[in-house]
Amino acid sequence: VEIIKKKIGIVGGGQLGKMMILEAKRLGFYVTVLDPDAQCSAHSICDHHIIASFDDPKGYLELSKLTDVITYEFEHINAKALENLESEGHLIYPSVTALKTIQNKYSQKTALKAGEIPIPKFAGVETPAEIREYGKPENLGYPLMLKTTTGGYDGKGNALIRDEADVEKAFARLGSGKKELMVEEFIAFEKEISIIACRGINGEKTVYPVAENTHKDSILDITAVPAKIDAAAGEKASSIANEVMSVFEGVGTFCIEMFVTAGGDIYVNEVAPRPHNSGHYTIEACFANQFENHIRAIVGLPFGDTSLITPAVMVNLIGESDGTAKLLGLEKAYLDPHVHVHLYGKKQSRKGRKMGHYTVVGNTFNDTVDNTLKRAQDLKSIIRVVGE
Amino acid sequence: VEIIKKKIGIVGGGQLGKMMILEAKRLGFYVTVLDPDAQCSAHSICDHHIIASFDDPKGYLELSKLTDVITYEFEHINAKALENLESEGHLIYPSVTALKTIQNKYSQKTALKAGEIPIPKFAGVETPAEIREYGKPENLGYPLMLKTTTGGYDGKGNALIRDEADVEKAFARLGSGKKELMVEEFIAFEKEISIIACRGINGEKTVYPVAENTHKDSILDITAVPAKIDAAAGEKASSIANEVMSVFEGVGTFCIEMFVTAGGDIYVNEVAPRPHNSGHYTIEACFANQFENHIRAIVGLPFGDTSLITPAVMVNLIGESDGTAKLLGLEKAYLDPHVHVHLYGKKQSRKGRKMGHYTVVGNTFNDTVDNTLKRAQDLKSIIRVVGE
Repeated sequence: VEIIKKKIGIVGGGQLGKMMILEAKRLGFYVTVLDPDAQCSAHSICDHHIIASFDDPKGYLELSKLTDVITYEFEHINAKALENLESEGHLIYPSVTALKTIQNKYSQKTALKAGEIPIPKFAGVETPAEIREYGKPENLGYPLMLKTTTGGYDGKGNALIRDEADVEKAFARLGSGKKELMVEEFIAFEKEISIIACRGINGEKTVYPVAENTHKDSILDITAVPAKIDAAAGEKASSIANEVMSVFEGVGTFCIEMFVTAGGDIYVNEVAPRPHNSGHYTIEACFANQFENHIRAIVGLPFGDTSLITPAVMVNLIGESDGTAKLLGLEKAYLDPHVHVHLYGKKQSRKGRKMGHYTVVGNTFNDTVDNTLKRAQDLKSIIRVVGE
Repeated sequence: VEIIKKKIGIVGGGQLGKMMILEAKRLGFYVTVLDPDAQCSAHSICDHHIIASFDDPKGYLELSKLTDVITYEFEHINAKALENLESEGHLIYPSVTALKTIQNKYSQKTALKAGEIPIPKFAGVETPAEIREYGKPENLGYPLMLKTTTGGYDGKGNALIRDEADVEKAFARLGSGKKELMVEEFIAFEKEISIIACRGINGEKTVYPVAENTHKDSILDITAVPAKIDAAAGEKASSIANEVMSVFEGVGTFCIEMFVTAGGDIYVNEVAPRPHNSGHYTIEACFANQFENHIRAIVGLPFGDTSLITPAVMVNLIGESDGTAKLLGLEKAYLDPHVHVHLYGKKQSRKGRKMGHYTVVGNTFNDTVDNTLKRAQDLKSIIRVVGE
């Protein structure tokens, strides 16, 4: 099939799927979305919408019949169904092997370790007694992270064990052993950073700048670019991101989240096989954004330039309350000509729901990230999403 | 109606309508398109599509019922139908007065003249005898432009009269007086330039850089930015574009096409009350593009930054032959990471039909427009649209 006539399928019609489609449509691709929600963010701009559960193999089969290549906007999907399609020759990017390895945090960390990527020490556990064993000072010690190996996102599925007295509570909170568990060395990090990286069908790679993330209530709050880390740490982080892309041999856009310690050590915390919230700044601040390069990757095109045009700060617009979504302060926010607001089209606001984001870019090419960050933070009390 | 809940209507679902929607969708707006073609470029990404003739008042009435503000992507539409809706209080931007004045080249030029904008001398004519009168050396002289006052685009509706012997032929070609005609002084221009400018509901204005256009077979071929004209001429052109926005009091994005003579004189050739082909470079090369600022204008938001990030060259992808559209050379073109291709989603190629465009941006912020132009021109033999 000629590149431009390839029909694209996307599992998931949330904001990431929507933003993939906005880029795919610039090139005129035909896009089908699989999502159970008839009113999902991608609904109004996709060519075809299969309304089916993410578990239902029939939905995936239908998607494969309507498309030449399938990608996905999140990883908690039916890998088995995709595996069957892949084994029948259907193109799935990133590959199902990459998806399955990354879906499970234990196998993800095992693969990263085998690839000699710096990561926190970790181990699979089944009982409180085993957790206590890893909590001993001669072992991983406290504080200790307990995680479910699957299904976690935005801090869900994680529990911090401060000391031995926390073990039973954390074990109970994460399902009392009904879900597969792992423990992980607690890294006393100074900063959380992330890098968006892309890998093509022929193995070519490109890496975006280092971004610095801050979370609030375990949800990404702010991404500031470039990260305020020294040049050596920045180079090390870029090099690690580049190596991670070889570990999974994935095709598409990935996000590599990392911790930086006060001593400048870097540990990979988590890898996502898809465009990522911490890469939204690329829409305004890079020549080719993470969604455009994702589409280029999966259809077999070379990448656009991933370098930074100006400092940029992205702030998530999180629903403050439940009800019909209402955006406040847009007119006032736009008095700054370097602010761009994105709304995902979700009709209902819920407290803690990602409703949109805004990106503030530098006032000049040589503006500082600190100055840009201050402008972005000043807008937080102005531009808000509430339910009413 | 709260800004973000305003429903937008667009008359025309071609590439300009499509690109407006791509920007409107970033902010989550609900968009309805009126276009007779069920497969028009905007079809797959609009929320609702009214399939009706551009003449049919019923289509416009339906559009008004589904929307809070109506705009348009071209000017050869039913102004009378829009006028009725506007008189009933429906928002039409740019206003119907601006549309009607601009639709007719004679009234457009009359308004520009009243606004003291530099334009070629012109006059309405009805007969070959009148044309010959204006052709006299003591009057406008030859060569002389003959134009239909309505319905012309891409050079259609224009005839160049070289000498008196051409008069009857030109008169016959433009309808033998069945269409309203005007003559215009021929400007021996050195360059054709254009400026995209925007005006908001409260009269605030912003002006994009000066772009330099070259045409082929009367269709725009290449737009290079910044235009290679001296600084004084550039400032004069910007100032004229700014004044033109006050003449029509239009709300939205406009294009002001101008001639520059060897002596540095500038004449306004034509004004379009909408985003324009010569402004497509703004998608990659400006912080806020012409479509985003058009949407901002019509919903009452302040403008994004219109300044240039790097030199940029846009090349139209014109169908070379008739048949099912096939794009050639995309993979090779994308070996240059600063090339971005846009396809309008038209299934059928026709010789001379605008099928898409590509924009090449500078390799560095300080790259020259000449270097960028050379790269863009080298791609012309590589990236092409043919029918098969």
